[in-house]
This record gives sequence, C-alpha cells and structure tokens, in this order.
Amino acid sequence: MFFASDNTSPAHPKVMEALAKANEGYAMPYGADPIMERVRAKIRDMFEAPEAEVYLCATGTSANAIALACLCPPWATIYTHQNSHAEEDECGAPEFYTGGSKLTLIGGKDAKMDPGHLEARIEHTARVGVHNVQRGAISVTNPTEAGATYSVEEVAKIGAIAKAYNLPLHMDGARFANAIAATNASPAEMTWKSGVDVVTLGGTKNGLMGVEAVVMFDPKIAWEFELRRKRGGHLFSKHRYLSAQMDAYLTDDLWLTMARQANAAAIRLRDGILSIEGASLLHPADANSVFASWPRAGHKRAIEAGAKYYFWPFDQSLEGSDEEMLSARLVCSWCTTEADVDAFLALIS
Amino acid sequence: MFFASDNTSPAHPKVMEALAKANEGYAMPYGADPIMERVRAKIRDMFEAPEAEVYLCATGTSANAIALACLCPPWATIYTHQNSHAEEDECGAPEFYTGGSKLTLIGGKDAKMDPGHLEARIEHTARVGVHNVQRGAISVTNPTEAGATYSVEEVAKIGAIAKAYNLPLHMDGARFANAIAATNASPAEMTWKSGVDVVTLGGTKNGLMGVEAVVMFDPKIAWEFELRRKRGGHLFSKHRYLSAQMDAYLTDDLWLTMARQANAAAIRLRDGILSIEGASLLHPADANSVFASWPRAGHKRAIEAGAKYYFWPFDQSLEGSDEEMLSARLVCSWCTTEADVDAFLALIS
Amino acid sequence: MFFASDNTSPAHPKVMEALAKANEGYAMPYGADPIMERVRAKIRDMFEAPEAEVYLCATGTSANAIALACLCPPWATIYTHQNSHAEEDECGAPEFYTGGSKLTLIGGKDAKMDPGHLEARIEHTARVGVHNVQRGAISVTNPTEAGATYSVEEVAKIGAIAKAYNLPLHMDGARFANAIAATNASPAEMTWKSGVDVVTLGGTKNGLMGVEAVVMFDPKIAWEFELRRKRGGHLFSKHRYLSAQMDAYLTDDLWLTMARQANAAAIRLRDGILSIEGASLLHPADANSVFASWPRAGHKRAIEAGAKYYFWPFDQSLEGSDEEMLSARLVCSWCTTEADVDAFLALIS
Amino acid sequence: MFFASDNTSPAHPKVMEALAKANEGYAMPYGADPIMERVRAKIRDMFEAPEAEVYLCATGTSANAIALACLCPPWATIYTHQNSHAEEDECGAPEFYTGGSKLTLIGGKDAKMDPGHLEARIEHTARVGVHNVQRGAISVTNPTEAGATYSVEEVAKIGAIAKAYNLPLHMDGARFANAIAATNASPAEMTWKSGVDVVTLGGTKNGLMGVEAVVMFDPKIAWEFELRRKRGGHLFSKHRYLSAQMDAYLTDDLWLTMARQANAAAIRLRDGILSIEGASLLHPADANSVFASWPRAGHKRAIEAGAKYYFWPFDQSLEGSDEEMLSARLVCSWCTTEADVDAFLALIS
Repeated sequence: MFFASDNTSPAHPKVMEALAKANEGYAMPYGADPIMERVRAKIRDMFEAPEAEVYLCATGTSANAIALACLCPPWATIYTHQNSHAEEDECGAPEFYTGGSKLTLIGGKDAKMDPGHLEARIEHTARVGVHNVQRGAISVTNPTEAGATYSVEEVAKIGAIAKAYNLPLHMDGARFANAIAATNASPAEMTWKSGVDVVTLGGTKNGLMGVEAVVMFDPKIAWEFELRRKRGGHLFSKHRYLSAQMDAYLTDDLWLTMARQANAAAIRLRDGILSIEGASLLHPADANSVFASWPRAGHKRAIEAGAKYYFWPFDQSLEGSDEEMLSARLVCSWCTTEADVDAFLALIS
Repeated sequence: MFFASDNTSPAHPKVMEALAKANEGYAMPYGADPIMERVRAKIRDMFEAPEAEVYLCATGTSANAIALACLCPPWATIYTHQNSHAEEDECGAPEFYTGGSKLTLIGGKDAKMDPGHLEARIEHTARVGVHNVQRGAISVTNPTEAGATYSVEEVAKIGAIAKAYNLPLHMDGARFANAIAATNASPAEMTWKSGVDVVTLGGTKNGLMGVEAVVMFDPKIAWEFELRRKRGGHLFSKHRYLSAQMDAYLTDDLWLTMARQANAAAIRLRDGILSIEGASLLHPADANSVFASWPRAGHKRAIEAGAKYYFWPFDQSLEGSDEEMLSARLVCSWCTTEADVDAFLALIS
Repeated sequence: MFFASDNTSPAHPKVMEALAKANEGYAMPYGADPIMERVRAKIRDMFEAPEAEVYLCATGTSANAIALACLCPPWATIYTHQNSHAEEDECGAPEFYTGGSKLTLIGGKDAKMDPGHLEARIEHTARVGVHNVQRGAISVTNPTEAGATYSVEEVAKIGAIAKAYNLPLHMDGARFANAIAATNASPAEMTWKSGVDVVTLGGTKNGLMGVEAVVMFDPKIAWEFELRRKRGGHLFSKHRYLSAQMDAYLTDDLWLTMARQANAAAIRLRDGILSIEGASLLHPADANSVFASWPRAGHKRAIEAGAKYYFWPFDQSLEGSDEEMLSARLVCSWCTTEADVDAFLALIS
Repeated sequence: MFFASDNTSPAHPKVMEALAKANEGYAMPYGADPIMERVRAKIRDMFEAPEAEVYLCATGTSANAIALACLCPPWATIYTHQNSHAEEDECGAPEFYTGGSKLTLIGGKDAKMDPGHLEARIEHTARVGVHNVQRGAISVTNPTEAGATYSVEEVAKIGAIAKAYNLPLHMDGARFANAIAATNASPAEMTWKSGVDVVTLGGTKNGLMGVEAVVMFDPKIAWEFELRRKRGGHLFSKHRYLSAQMDAYLTDDLWLTMARQANAAAIRLRDGILSIEGASLLHPADANSVFASWPRAGHKRAIEAGAKYYFWPFDQSLEGSDEEMLSARLVCSWCTTEADVDAFLALIS
C-alpha cells in the first residue's frame, strides 16, 4: 500500500536485465555507446520525427530545466502553471539554468493552463519594451501535477497561442507515458503535431532507475543543449547505463505497458473511493494519481495499517472527528497491484 | 586492451548485485532510503570523522562543482592547477555553479600545484581591495590529471597555506581510491588531518556505474549543499540506487581492492614500457595512469590490433617515421588484467 | 504640463551648483572623495543610525537589486507586491543580481502588500524542505507604484512578520522623500524602528540627476554590497559627482522641500480632478502621483494642448465617445508649479 | 602633481556647460532625449559607420562587460591579456554579466596580446568538444593597461585571427581617445576596418564625469545589449545627462584635444624622467601613462611634497637606500599642465 509517489517504486525486471547486459566489457563514454544509437532511433520512430535530436538525463529536473534554458533567455519569462513542478518543486532549477529568467504563473483548473489566462499574461508581459522581462517560452506538464491530462486538442490550443506569439512550447513529460496511456493519442499528435517544440519523456517515475529523454523536434538547439548539460554536470561518463534503461523502456512498448498498469490501478482506486459515502475527487484522476477526500476514520485505519501517502494539502491532521473529510494524494505506479488497491480500499471504506 | 579511460570499464559484479538487491519493493525517495544511512556511517568511519556530512551525486563534475560553490562566492576565485579537470574538462561547471567565480591557474610539475606559485597568486589576488576578485578557495586533485599523487605531506603543505589565508581547501577525489592505494595513507590523513575541508570520494571511475560521495568535514555548509544539489537537478528521487552502489563500494574494502588492481596494472604497464628502448615517462605514474612515450612503430602495431588509448597531446599522427617517439595516456581500471597489459606490451615493444 | 513621470524633470539648481563646486581640482576616486564622508554622516544623522553603512548608486534599479542580492540567496524568494517596480519594470534585475532567485508576488490594494496574503505565501513557501525555493527577503515600496503610502504602523506590521519569520526587510525608497513628506514620519520611524533592514533613499526622481543612497542598518552586509556593486559595474570612479548631488540633497532639507512641492502639486491636481463630474480616483494619491479617471473629452483637450502623461492601463484610446471615462497616471515633481496644475485642470474640466 | 589616475581629474568646463544647458525643462527619459539623437549621429560620423548602434553607459566596467556578454555565451571563453582591466580590476564583472564565462589569459609585452600566444590558446580551447569551454570572443584594450598603444596594423593582425576563427572582436576603449591621439589613426581604421566588432569609446577618464559609448558595428546585437543594460540597472532614467556629456565630448573634437593634452604631458614627463641618471621605462609610454623607475631619493622628495601616484607594483617601500630604483605608474590627464610636470620633474631629479 505504497501510494506516496511513483518514485518510490522499484525498477522493472527487464530494466535490470538490460543493465546487466550493458555491463559487459568496455564501452565508449559520454553518449558514444552503441546502445544510445538504438535509443535515438527508437525515439525518432516513436515520435515519427526522423530529424529530432535526443539526449538523456538522469533526473527530470535537469532534463526540463536544461531544455528550458535553451528556449528562454535570462531576460525573458517562462509561462507555466502556478502549481507546476517547475514552480513548486525544483528549488528554482529553471531560474538557475536559464541564468535568472522569471516564471510567470498561469492559473487553470486541475493544474492545466487556462488558455485565456495564458494569453492575458503574454499580452501583459511585453507592454513596456525594454523595461519588462520579455516573452520567453511556454511550458505545460502532461499529465499535470493534479493528475489531469491535456487532450491533444487542449495541447493544440496552447500550441496555437505559442505559434501566434512566436514562442517555443515545452512539455514536461515526467509522466508522459501515463498521458499517452490515458488518452490513446500518438506521441506525435501529443507533441510536435500540436505545436510542442521540446518534450521530456520521463522514465524514472515509470519503472526506470533514473532516466529521462529530452526530445528536440528542432535540432538547431541540440548543441546548446549538449553544452548546458555538460556544464551542469549532467553528461554521464558511463552513459551506457542510461542508454540501457531507456532501451529496455522502449522495447516491446514496456513504457506503455507499465503506464497502463499504473493508470488502471488508479482507476480502480478512484472508483473504490467514490463508492465511500461522502467521498469526492479533488481532480479528475485521468492518469495514475488520485486526489480525493474521504472521512478521517478511513485515513486513521489506513495509516495505522502502514499505508503510505500524503495529505494534500500537507497540513491536515489525524486528530479530530471521524466524520470530517481529509484529502489526500495517492499515486499508483507500474507495480501497484489490484491486491494493493483492494486492501487499501478495504481499510478506508 | 582498453586504456582509453577508466570510465570505459564496467561496474563490478558486487555493485550489480547490490543494485539488484536494492531493487526490491518500495523505498522512500531523495536520500531518505535506509541504505543511505549505512553509507553515511561507513564513510564517517572510513574518514574517522563522526561529524562529517555525506551526500551522493551521480557525476564527478556535479559533486565537485556544487561543493566548490558552497566554498567560493561569485566574486572570488578558486585556485586550481592549470591542467585540472575543473579548468580543462568541465565546460565551465565551476563557473556555472558558483555564479561566475574565476579560476586562478597554478602551475606545477605533474599537474600538482606548486606551493610557491600558489602563494604568489594568492598574494597577488587581493592587492587592490574591492577592484579584484577576492580569495575564494583552493582545489587540489589527488591523483592529478597527470597520474601523479600528492603525498600526505604535500597535501599538508597546501593545507597550511589554506589555513594561513583562511581559505577552504577542496580535494577533487575522482580517483581518491587510487591515491590511497598508492600512498597507503589513511583517508583521514590524506584529507582533514592535512587541512582538507571537503573531499569527493569518486566511485564512477573505479567500478561503479556512476556515484560520487561528497564528504564535508565541516557540516555547516551541508544545508547549502543540499539546496544547490537540488537546484542543479542532482537530487535523485530513486536515490537508493546511488546509495546501493556506494554501499557495495564501501563493503569489505571493495573500493581499495579495485584501486589496487588498477594501480598494479599501471605499474606493470609502466615497467614494461620503460624496458622499450628509447621509451620514457612524461609523468611518474603513481596511480592508475601512465603517460609515456615510445616509438611510432609500437603505436602502429597496438592501434592496428585494436588497442584503445589517447595520444597525449591529441594532435600527434600515426604518419611518419617508425622511430619517432609519440606520447600517450594509458589508463588502467579495476578490470585491467595482467594479460591485457602483457598483450599490449608485446605489441608496442 | 509634464506629468509623464518625475524622472522627466530637471535637476534642482542647487544640485547643479554643488556639481560645479565639486568639479574643482583632483579628487580620489571610488568613494574615497571627502564629500562622501559628509554624505555618510548626514544620512546617519537623518536616520538616527550612527552605525549604518551608506553607499551610492546612480540608478534605482541597481541600488535595489544589489541590496536584495545581499539579503536573498539564489535559492530563495523575495516577497514583493505583484505591481512592484522590481517585478514589473526592471527586466529581471533582481533575478540577475541574486543569481536566479524567485519573486513571490503578493496582492493588496493600491500596490501595498496585504499582510495576510504575505503571511500565507511565506507559510506556503517552505512546506517541502529542499524541494522548494526557500524564504528569502521581503521588499516593500514606499510610496507604492500606485501612489499610496504605507504609514509607519503599516510598515511595522510587515516588519513584525519579517521578524517572526527571521526574514530581512527591504524598502524600495525610490520616492522615500515623498513618503516622508506625506506622512510626516521620521526616517527612522519609517525604517529601522519599524523593522526595515535596508532602505534605498531615492534622489533621481526628486531633483537629482541620478543618485540613490543605499542605507544598511546592519553593517555586516556592507562588504558584500561593495563587492556586488563593483562587480555589477556600479562603482563610479569619479564618485565625487554622485556624492555632491546627494550632499546638496541633504543640505537644508532640500530633499524634503522638493518632495513637499511635488506632493502639494499632486493634492491640488487630485482635488481639481475630483471636482469634475464623473471623475474618480483609482488610488488614494497619498504622495506625488495621481491615478484618476475623467471623461475622454478632457483627455482630448489636454493631449492636443501638449500635456504629457500616460493612460493607465496603456491600452486605452482617444477614439470614442466624449463621455466615456479614461484613466491616467499623473506624476508631479519638485518643479511642477501651481500654474502647470491649473492650466491642466482648465483643459480637462 | 596628481598622477594617481586620469579618473581623479575633473570634468572639462565645456562638459559642465553642456550639463547646465541640458538641465532646462523636461526631457523624455531612458535615451529618448533629443540630445541622444545627436550623439548617435556624431558617433556614426566619427566612425564612418552609418549603421552602427550606439548606447551610453556611465561606467567603463559596465560598458565593456555588457558588450562582452552579448558576444560570448556562458559556456565560452574570452581571450584577453593577463593584465587587462577585465581580468584584474573588475571584480569579475565579465564573468557576472556573461553568466559565468571564462577568461583565457594571453601574454604579451606591454600588456599587448601576443598574436602567436593568442592563436595557441584558441587552438587549445576546442580540442575536446563538449568537455571544454568553447571559443567565445577576443578582447583587446587600446591603449593597454601598461600605457602602450596597438597600431592599426597590430589590431588588424588580431582582427585577422578573430576572422579566421569566426570570433567577435571587442576593443576596450576606456582611453580610446588617447590611442587615436597617439597613433593618428582614424577611429574607423582602428576599429571596424581592422576587424573590431564592438568598441567602447571612453569619456570618463578623459574629461567627462562618467560616460562611455558602446559602439556596435553589427547592429544585430543591439536589442540584446539594451535588455542586458536595463537588467543590469545601467539604463538611466535621466539619460539626457549622459547624452549631454557625450555631446560636448564630440563637439569640436574636444575628445581629441583633451587626449592630446594628456599625451603631450606624458611625453614631457617621460623625457624628463629619462634624463635622470639610472632612470628607465618599464613600458613605452605611448599614450598618457608613464611606467618608469628612478631612485628612491626622488620618490621621497616627490611624495613628501604631496605628489600623488602609485608604486608599480604596489608593494615597494620608501624605506631603504636612496639609490635603489623604485618603479611607478604616472598617469596624465587632459588637465595636467606643463607646470605640473616640470614641478614634479624638479622634485624627482
């Protein structure tokens, strides 16, 4: 009953096998390993983007922040949702990598950017020439930090705004696999066909030890990305171990299989919770996270039994009346079983 | 016959076992895994430093650059050898992490800092108050980029200068194990007992996939280190996989065993080369690297047979007279065998 | 009829005299001129702060951004009003000087920070340890960008919050003289007695060519300020010309006399506008700025007659019905005359 | 007898007149003043560069560092002489404005870059791809910090290297007027005709209060320069006072007249010193600075009589034998008189 985060789950056995296999003999360092060649080809295929440039990073924060630094100069601003990971959970990594750009916060339900608010803030940005920070880049997260997914149409709407203002569009895809599993969109439709310039394809939260791919549909920024990655200390000498994980991830659609398991577990969890009297959802639970409220008594039983998850917001207390509703975030992963979900539901119901 | 770099070697089987074991079940992220507790305790023991703070990074560049940023403000300078990794091989990572500090380059044989030159440059730095960059920190690398080791006494001499000027002393220990194996000094003598404030204990080049420990003998900078590591995207969510590698490294002195193998291979290589007529060493070959010259004919035979290593400097050519001396860097690792060495020597002799 | 900004006004004749006098003979550079000694003493007197450290900058943006950089590390955030100059009019100068800190935007009427909102945002900041940017500093502007002044009590309320959270409090005093003239508070009461740690005493908008004093009640940050000022290119070699302007400003209360003239003109303007049918104020007009609405017909007549001022917001149009209300910002300065005001009122009425 | 620096001299009376004249009435801020129009036109004429973009800064450090930041990305290096102002006297301003670029130090007599050494360092920079900082920009200072001037031919030689490696060439012209006065070259020949892309035309050391013009022969970087200047807090609201100084400077060749006076004084000083027995020059004294040695007895007499200048290097002492040679830097300015020089020579002879 481990719903604290998908990053608490282990790596998939096939990933471990791939690592073991990659560990044979010597390999050229810094991305010149032969596995990386395969990874590049597979990702180009997956995104139907034969010209795309592909790089690996070991953490999501680095993958996204370095990509954003290639898209937004220091004197500009990145439009991002006020609850995005970039704003709330990275200790200022985008500001660090860009050299001091601003983040302009956009509102919207379920941590999805409201297009009208986005446009209003873009308009506001550039009203006094050199005195303001300039318009830089737009960054969306799919699925969002609230567990909702953007549909292809919704991304395309943001993409159209990006195009209208000639701004690059970045997608934080830390859980990209879960978005694809949830929407059945193709990776290409979800990204470049809808106006996305750079996407990160997360693996860490979905069964890898720690690898994210940065996919640049415009290869012109690739060299700058390489330099910024190196300078940030994110170019791995024994790069083959990153390549091997990503290679396994992309083999036989392992990425999608794992994301589907996680999403299915979340749906089971969601449905179970909603059958509790008084329970409700905070957000729609489109992918592998469930944000929901149910009575304190159920929380007490679950936590006493060792279930792990976070109150959302954090500052709620187990002390108080049994009937009061407390809200929580529950995240499923590729290894969450039906039994886990059912055991948990039995406790909180 | 792979002497290109120790970073081309695989991980040790015990490290792979430890990873497999760490992969069972769920684990709290971001360094809160139980394995990290063990690692911390082992490193404190190893360095006889019960108060030391210990953090893990996945790359040497990040470990060193983040540590330096905690020691040197943006308006100060880091004294480092002109051939150090920080100066020559990190695309400006120290400048990036510090927010624009300078590197003041110190000369000295075999990439070891000349103490006299160091003092002269420190004196020079602060001669005009606010107009100059200020004195920041001193960084030594042991073993050096030229394969030489500092003795404890030599480190202590630098340590005394650091103390005299009230400057923190950092040791880049990307190959720290090789230095200890070569000198038989204790880790404590080689570091804090000789005036070192922060050392990085490298694992990547010595049998791990990619982990370095940053050991701070002064725990006061620990929180700043944590913030800078997070902000730089170097805090791993699935941290247990870093912990597990380092834990294996520290178990039954695996780190030292591997370093001794590498160093022994280098000595065998060095002695073999020196028996070639006309051959000579560029640097003393104290640890696991050999910088040596021998006739072009031998290089031709080795390279044709598939041996991998770098000319040093790079811009030498296989074209030319057989007798001319060409110089090369040869790096041994924990998995370099006597047979590898002997096969190589047979080719170049 | 020049109400575009107080920075369009000339320097006061006494300032020009002081410059001419300072221009005699040689003077030691970089702040070692004897006039700076006098300036320092006068500002210490003015603020009843004999230990305060005082530095001059030539622009308000540099004075404030460098001060903030001494108060807020790169991984922290500055709490500031969403309409502050730091957020809206400096092209990211605070982010640049701090090395990438964030600005956390606080709401509140008339561009004054709402203390409740401030506390809520401070509480929100630190809820997840190393993952968030940290609490850095609080910055208030007095008078605000909306022409309102904080009373001493209001500053003290913010000061108490700063103290409760152990955060430094900065006051952007680009128009500090106007705030003092408006409230009749003493400079000490308005600043350190109410919890302010650093204030900038603006001169540029109030009769100087371009000088601002940075007053640090805690002298411990002084050396860092000096280094950051130098490194930012803001240490003037011919510093005497900054000193001389500030010296004239502080002689015989010229600063206060000029601010009173500007404020009196604004009151006259405000009262005249309010006598127009349908006219109204957007903000209270506490100091030398008036934000007000009146019918388009009046705007047309004024602009045709050559009056200079900005619509507020910018994107209003002179095209349309005569009766519609358009809003504007009108800024008075030390040299705005009653005749100017009356001529303008005659046009718009 | 004030030879400490040209920045200790006052502003020229015509500059004061221009300021007084500029002080009449209101003027639009931030460079939109009509005087700036004239300045732009005059500088384009002066440099025979009708497309050049021209901006003003109040300090030399800001003018040069902001310009360099437009030419060199954070991950690259600026080739500059090891004794340049950028390296030795700016507390890291170039590193700050570029966001952490490196300065690669070039040797050469009299603080002039040795072209062979420059080429060797450029070659060395890029030898290992992404692992090194990249080749960024070249910066020369004319006249140098050692008082020597580059001839047009010498600049052109550096310009040819810049072109060969496709690197931008920056000239720090803090004393550009003195270089032109010394060489009789045209500003165009000394700059863009010899390959210079950006030059700063210094005024502060040569009779202004504090203004430098940044002249960009390639207007494509102009907008970035404006944003960086604003963000650095170097865009003056009351910009007319910068414009007015520069306008006076460019009227009737005042800049050249003043530089010629300064240079003539230096030649008189040089010749006088060389007539002292045992005296010698450290550098050729091409412009307005004289670096020379003469016996301690002469130094004692001069300093007792109130002469101001710096020992060079600083750490020489007045204590010791009368005959020993001590070396010094003597800087003449537009207001150094023949009488000043002769009085000084009388003391030291």
